[in-house]
Order: sequence, then C-alpha cells, then structure tokens
Amino acid sequence: MNLVLFEASEIGQPLPLADPRANHILRVLRRGEGGVFDAGVVDGPRGKATVVSVGGGHLAFTFEGTAEPPPADAIDLVVALPRPQTARKILNEAASLGVARIRFFRSEKGEPGYASSTLWSSGEWRRHLVEGAAQAFDTRLPGVAHDASLEESIAGLPDSGSRIALDNYEAARRLVPEGVTLPVALAFGPERGWSARERELLRSRGFSLAHLGSRVLRTETAVVAAVAIAKARS
Amino acid sequence: MNLVLFEASEIGQPLPLADPRANHILRVLRRGEGGVFDAGVVDGPRGKATVVSVGGGHLAFTFEGTAEPPPADAIDLVVALPRPQTARKILNEAASLGVARIRFFRSEKGEPGYASSTLWSSGEWRRHLVEGAAQAFDTRLPGVAHDASLEESIAGLPDSGSRIALDNYEAARRLVPEGVTLPVALAFGPERGWSARERELLRSRGFSLAHLGSRVLRTETAVVAAVAIAKARS
Repeated sequence: MNLVLFEASEIGQPLPLADPRANHILRVLRRGEGGVFDAGVVDGPRGKATVVSVGGGHLAFTFEGTAEPPPADAIDLVVALPRPQTARKILNEAASLGVARIRFFRSEKGEPGYASSTLWSSGEWRRHLVEGAAQAFDTRLPGVAHDASLEESIAGLPDSGSRIALDNYEAARRLVPEGVTLPVALAFGPERGWSARERELLRSRGFSLAHLGSRVLRTETAVVAAVAIAKARS
Repeated sequence: MNLVLFEASEIGQPLPLADPRANHILRVLRRGEGGVFDAGVVDGPRGKATVVSVGGGHLAFTFEGTAEPPPADAIDLVVALPRPQTARKILNEAASLGVARIRFFRSEKGEPGYASSTLWSSGEWRRHLVEGAAQAFDTRLPGVAHDASLEESIAGLPDSGSRIALDNYEAARRLVPEGVTLPVALAFGPERGWSARERELLRSRGFSLAHLGSRVLRTETAVVAAVAIAKARS
C-alpha cells in the first residue's frame, strides 16, 4: 500500500482501528498523532493526510488533496469471465498497470458458475481495484462492466483505435507495440480458448488476432504482458 | 498444470497417490487405466504418458518422449532478493514466460533476512519453477543462482547483448522492444530502490536505465512486463 486510499465519504470521518488501513498507518508506516502519510480519495485527488488522534477504537485524520491523478491510458480490456481467483489478480494488476475499463463477458467455452461467486456479489471485487491503484500511487479505478456476451462487450467499446484479440491458436503475428493505436481494446478468451463463433465475431468487428509467443500463459500473466506491450508503444 | 512434469528419476517408478500429480491425472484429467496424458521430463523431452495401473497406493505409468523443448530465450534476470511471497511469484512467472536464468542478489537496501526463508532451504523454490514451466507446456527450468552482491551477479552475465536496469527514479527512457538485443540482462532493484553505489556500478558495467512508466509496480508485475516487452522484440 503505497498510497492510503479513502472513499470520498470517509474523509472527515474517524477510521475504525479494525480497518486494515488503520493498522497500516500505525504499524507499517508507524505514524502517531501528528504523523503525515501519502493518501488519496478514490477517483479524486492525491495528497497528504495527517493523524489527528488515536483512541476510542478510532483513528481521526485530516486530508488535503494536492494533485488530480493523470487520466488513465485509453486501454479497454475485454476478458472472458474467469475463475474468481484469476479475476482477483486481473482486477489488481489492471488497476496497478492503469487501464480505462475492464469488461467481463460470458464466453461460450467459459464456466457460467463463475458469475455467481461472492467476489462479485459481496463487493469484494472493488477492494482488489483499490489495492492495485494504491500500489501504483494512483487514485483512479478502472471501470468494471459485466456483459452477457462478447457481442455486448464489443458494443460497449470505443469506435476508433485498434482492436486486438489474444489467441494462441489462430493468430499469425505476435503482439508488438507498433500494432497498437490508442484507444485500444485487448480481448482475452477463456482458458479453453475462443469458440469458432467468437473468433468470427471478433474478425467481423475489426479485431485482429495476435499472440504472445507459443507458450501457454495464465490469463493474468497474459493481461500484464499485453498491457505492458501496449504501453511500450510511445 | 498443462503438462505433467516428472523428474528423470521418477520415470519408470510408481507415483504415490498422495502426490498432487496423481490427483491431477485421476481427478482433473480423469484418466484411468490406459488413459493417455501430456507429460514431460524436467529439462528433457515432452511426450505422452499412459496410465498402466492404479492400486496399492500408487499409479504406475509409462512415458514416451516425442520432442525436445525449444531452447530458452537468452534472457537473464538479475533480481534483488525479494520477500519469499514475491520470490515464489517471480520463480513461477519467469519459468512460465521462459527465461534462461534468474540471478538473485543481496541488495544494499534489501532485507538480509529474506535469504534464510524456508523457500530456499527446503527446496520449495524448485516447485514454483516446475509449476511455471508446466503451465507453459515446457519442460525447461530457468537456472537459478544466488549471488552475494550485484557485482557478483553482473560477473555471471553474458558479455554481449544488452544490459538494462529497471528504475523508476533516474531512468530517462521507457523500456521498448527496440532497445533490446539478445542476449539481454534485465535487472530489478529492491522495493526501496537501487542504492547510489548500485546505480553507479550498473552504469559502469554497461547497463542503461529504463522505466515502465511512472506507476510503482510490484516487482513480480515489473518482471512480467519487462520480459514481455523484451520478447516483443522480434
């Protein structure tokens, strides 16, 4: 946690000592009364916070915003809804690398049960975004959408820029920075791969297929690799 | 586990049912007697294995190697010895992406205690390499070296090719594929950054400094990003 992130509604409120951030401020950063630490407001400014008092089960603090975060890179991820453990890593890594939006869709060869995970119903998913953003000293969280199909995800994408689907089987070329123009949409299929109908749909909607080499990578590794290559463009 | 990897000494020996690979073969792949699965020998051939019998607490199998794995890309990683949880991820990801060697060194701003983790003394570290290689359908494990200092790590590197140290603070340019010539050494400092002496040493030994953007990434994320960019070279 390089930046302690608060929701806008938490500013000016005492932070319960049971909150992991209170533990981080007191034990890891070792700040006591009067101590200053790097903080930010989710999707708002970054700045400095000061511990006002600690007691009664709470930590009181003030916050002064000094800088708006830079806008996110215009990178949209389109990801076949993965198993919850994989989704946690993708949420965290995507927020830490900085992307505009993640669209999860139900893919034809995916597992429909993944959608009913408590990761999504409990709101836990947002915590992974906050942790990823805090790691990167950013306050901005990627937008997250859940789409019923690949078709719906594609309909939600920007009209311009490049569209690239990662594919180990039918892609003839490697993903390289020169092939990327912002805004870019990067699409990742499910573990079992794209269906023939999905590949056809991708091609008909302007996606080119690209690979990351012949090695079979976990989806979360492929996401980091592809976003890093897209960012190495400039 | 896309490939079930065995040590050379395990071929021809019955596999105890308590071994996680036996569970994977029987429960995940659902192979019974006569069933065939993708397998390989660590640092040896890839091929097909056949379940001969299951019983008496063991699974007996035969293995036939059909192809040697392709040589590893000439990428050496030089990594300030990280906390064990980070080292596990780096071992796994580096094996899955495919690199030639990982050299861990004691950095000046690193935590000396990390070296005495059971990760290293128990041999657990090798399991993470095997898992990463199996994910990528590869049998080849990156070499792993532990060096007493950055100086020692540098002395173990190839003489030719490019040398790049990732640095968030003093690097003037971004890591891009065009800047990479194989063999390449990619160096990663500790969480608290390179010391002034280490930066001086890197520069004097032919390293250029490069960054991955202004965001502060976890070391394991930076490793995946940098290796992906180096591989997008061709």
